[in-house]
Amino acid sequence: MSEEMKLKIIPLGGVDEIGKNMTVFEYGDDIVVVDCGLIFPQEDMLGIDLVIPDISYLEKNYDRVRAFLITHGHEDHIGATPYVLERIPVPVYGTKLTLGLVEHKLKERKVGNIELNVVEPGDVVQLGAFTVQFIRVSHSIAGAVAMAITTPVGTVLHTGDFKIDYTPVDGEGTDLSTIAALGSKGLLALLADSTNVERPGFTMTEKNIGKTFRELFRDAQGRIIIATFASNVSRIQLIVNEGVRYGRKFCFIGRSMVNIVKLAGQLGELTIPEDALIDIDDLDRYRDDQIVIVTTGSQGESMSGLMRMAYGEHRKVTIRSTDLVILSSSVIPGNEKLVSRVINQLYRCGATVIYEAQQMAEVHVSGHARQEELKLIHKLAHPRYFIPVHGEYRHLCQHAKLAVAMGVEPDHVVVPDLGSVIELDQKEIKVTGTVPSGSVLIDGLGVGDVGNVVLRDRRHLSQDGLIIVVMAVDSEQGMVVAGPEIISRGFVYVREAEELMDSVRNVVLHILADYDRIEPCDWNPIKARVREELRKHLIEKIKRNPMILPIIVEI
Amino acid sequence: MSEEMKLKIIPLGGVDEIGKNMTVFEYGDDIVVVDCGLIFPQEDMLGIDLVIPDISYLEKNYDRVRAFLITHGHEDHIGATPYVLERIPVPVYGTKLTLGLVEHKLKERKVGNIELNVVEPGDVVQLGAFTVQFIRVSHSIAGAVAMAITTPVGTVLHTGDFKIDYTPVDGEGTDLSTIAALGSKGLLALLADSTNVERPGFTMTEKNIGKTFRELFRDAQGRIIIATFASNVSRIQLIVNEGVRYGRKFCFIGRSMVNIVKLAGQLGELTIPEDALIDIDDLDRYRDDQIVIVTTGSQGESMSGLMRMAYGEHRKVTIRSTDLVILSSSVIPGNEKLVSRVINQLYRCGATVIYEAQQMAEVHVSGHARQEELKLIHKLAHPRYFIPVHGEYRHLCQHAKLAVAMGVEPDHVVVPDLGSVIELDQKEIKVTGTVPSGSVLIDGLGVGDVGNVVLRDRRHLSQDGLIIVVMAVDSEQGMVVAGPEIISRGFVYVREAEELMDSVRNVVLHILADYDRIEPCDWNPIKARVREELRKHLIEKIKRNPMILPIIVEI
Repeated sequence: MSEEMKLKIIPLGGVDEIGKNMTVFEYGDDIVVVDCGLIFPQEDMLGIDLVIPDISYLEKNYDRVRAFLITHGHEDHIGATPYVLERIPVPVYGTKLTLGLVEHKLKERKVGNIELNVVEPGDVVQLGAFTVQFIRVSHSIAGAVAMAITTPVGTVLHTGDFKIDYTPVDGEGTDLSTIAALGSKGLLALLADSTNVERPGFTMTEKNIGKTFRELFRDAQGRIIIATFASNVSRIQLIVNEGVRYGRKFCFIGRSMVNIVKLAGQLGELTIPEDALIDIDDLDRYRDDQIVIVTTGSQGESMSGLMRMAYGEHRKVTIRSTDLVILSSSVIPGNEKLVSRVINQLYRCGATVIYEAQQMAEVHVSGHARQEELKLIHKLAHPRYFIPVHGEYRHLCQHAKLAVAMGVEPDHVVVPDLGSVIELDQKEIKVTGTVPSGSVLIDGLGVGDVGNVVLRDRRHLSQDGLIIVVMAVDSEQGMVVAGPEIISRGFVYVREAEELMDSVRNVVLHILADYDRIEPCDWNPIKARVREELRKHLIEKIKRNPMILPIIVEI
Repeated sequence: MSEEMKLKIIPLGGVDEIGKNMTVFEYGDDIVVVDCGLIFPQEDMLGIDLVIPDISYLEKNYDRVRAFLITHGHEDHIGATPYVLERIPVPVYGTKLTLGLVEHKLKERKVGNIELNVVEPGDVVQLGAFTVQFIRVSHSIAGAVAMAITTPVGTVLHTGDFKIDYTPVDGEGTDLSTIAALGSKGLLALLADSTNVERPGFTMTEKNIGKTFRELFRDAQGRIIIATFASNVSRIQLIVNEGVRYGRKFCFIGRSMVNIVKLAGQLGELTIPEDALIDIDDLDRYRDDQIVIVTTGSQGESMSGLMRMAYGEHRKVTIRSTDLVILSSSVIPGNEKLVSRVINQLYRCGATVIYEAQQMAEVHVSGHARQEELKLIHKLAHPRYFIPVHGEYRHLCQHAKLAVAMGVEPDHVVVPDLGSVIELDQKEIKVTGTVPSGSVLIDGLGVGDVGNVVLRDRRHLSQDGLIIVVMAVDSEQGMVVAGPEIISRGFVYVREAEELMDSVRNVVLHILADYDRIEPCDWNPIKARVREELRKHLIEKIKRNPMILPIIVEI
């Protein structure tokens, strides 16, 4: 390999956004990709289920892609795997829980024949020109790793999502010694999680949550119902530990919760005494003060366990006034109103409710490093170059500033855009170009078949509905033989708007009156006039702008 | 008037929601109404512009309504006035800024002949059986008042929105002495703002914001651009005071900002040295370090001043890398993503951005009392009964609990629902019934003509668009003479989905093949089959559920 060759780093996701993380590392003929995540659709992406990165660059270079390396099992790091691996079926590396979750996803979409290679923290894997070392980190899911990716031009540390936590639940936590050793040997570049860069101080240790649970459990008289992120196995372990202490049994509710608890149990990531598990159908056989229900719905999701229990729509469990309900979670931005709705409903059931916004009890900590933790990593790693990742543009900028304050040369920091091709070696780092990047929208079974035109129509329809003007034209006679019929949906409550609907019909009749004879070549001008004149009429009359669809049937 | 008569309190808005505040007080033949607000639509109210309370109870009792009493000029307290007063044109009482803002709204909707009576804090007004005393309170707008409403059965204190703030910008602040005097004489009931009941401690004084501005202004080298709530006249006064100190001039941008600054200036609520005001067209004549721009857009509103400046869409001002941009505001729940978007864009312009989430500088305080302030009011007022208002259900419950902790008997607290008729006298308080209540949706010029059916259609259309199946049937021949034609909008990008669209057509043809002859009585069954079979086909084929509209034109 030529001495002149540079390492290329190309973020295909996770920069200028929190989600769909995916970073390409390219050296010579070899490509490895860190993470393969999804992001949930923005509010204006109506009807879209989820969004994955544009991977056309990887598809084009398919024969050079050696592997996907997954840092941990959250959706924003693994959620795109079924869609991406069905097109690029290369080996995948990750820890056991991570790959357990990936496997489940692949099965759901019936993507077969993918080589899943389980690694442990400390393992080193050779992939073409890359030597990849997996490094244990603390996060809000078990089995999270950072990666040191060594190339002929130097070693790059990609933190993945992480925090420090000196006293994590599993007793291990971020492997600072390895990071320090890498730093001492000299790191070419650091890519680090920017999610919490705006927050001063340190993220509190998960152990404190255990203390809170202990107090709440000690005093609880009735059932305890806890909603948390299904993937937060440490949190679930804490709940189990404290529940066992007070002689309670556990019932897990909600599809993803049941799945992950089962998987984590099988993999040894979660330890629950066998006699402490109870089936939902056996809840009646225990006293209220013997029960802990752990469920989904901490984000107010409409079909989640907690939501259905709160609204009396769950087959087996309904919230009662004697219940203690704990939302052991933060609110993901965008979900504020949903979460507020479920909390109000829990109060309406008369339950005692504990949640973060009350500031009454520490029931949640973030999985992401705050400023002082980031500084520690920068101090230990002291890289030559810095590339902030995993954050919106504002987070990346503030992380860049933090890096400079920690000693990185200002021109050694690159705040990347999606698709930026960042080339680096010992001499310099610079953005040399871009590759195709962006979002692929998934709606039902369709991948990428809903684009801007379709979304624009959905937005238009959502605002003021539509009006269809349909008529039949006999092209021999050159005249309208049926209609115009006016049909509307989502526009106005028609039964109480007869006068308005009549006025719509009159506008159309008025246009038709301009024609003695309608020729086939007249149709498009007539349709255009119907759209335009109706639009003006409705804006003036009622200040609404429905989609107007003139349909002419030729007979 | 009979000794037996009770006071009725009926919340028509502002309970179980933050917004559209409206509380009815009724004694014998007299009704007065406190506040007349709007609420912004929930996310699932597609295309709706704003929402006002259902006032059918007031319309029915129109001849008994003596007045609307307005606590202050925020939208959630005055926003419904044009719609309500055009139906119930009774006198309105409020302080000068409040009524100035109401007057502007009435003019916009061309509602004339409303008697607007300006009062000052301390004034007492007699309205039928009610004696109403206006009491100065601090809030995030000038001219806010609480009201002591005296009836033959006792006096009720309604706080409106308030906080304490011992050192407000205008030097006055909440009139604790009057509240204490009322408490000493004995209050029948207290209705109080619950917005911040979840927050411990005291809301910081507005003066601290002044200190922050002083430091930021002292160090700023370029232009200073501040986005804040237009109605927060005290905040604007602070900005002006500090700007003048550092020799800067002021340019106000954004329609509502310009309106309120003008109105507040005329009313003497805002003092700006005349030579310190500059026109937007004269900005070029000043150095950057002589300029403060105060604008709208602190909630990321798409057409606001700040948004247009950030995206280079403002005619006169574009954000530059030398600008210091301050978002002097909190994020209203639901607006998180919009605000994030504008902040990212400001960073992209290279500006220095200061906002609350960074926790770098105190650039905003709330206008609502926190727990310790609420306790102070409860302590001074020590009412016989307590009714929490202005909050979602969870806030009302927590405020009820606080009241009990402060000494109100538990059965003397009523957590009201919308429309609850609360009857009270010295002997007891209880809910004796309900009146019609709820939401009236405003879309364009239409008031209440968009109901559940229309919204359901808009939601359906927004998710997967629509498919129209149109055909012409000759009823004499009993056969389809044109079509079926398939038209879709918002469903799929048709050019790349020919096979799918063909399959849709085939489903319809298959149904039609079952008929030798189509009689008029067959149409509804055919339409029903088209809807049902197409729905199943599309769910199976692509997991989408568009609206399906079969249209048969008879010729």
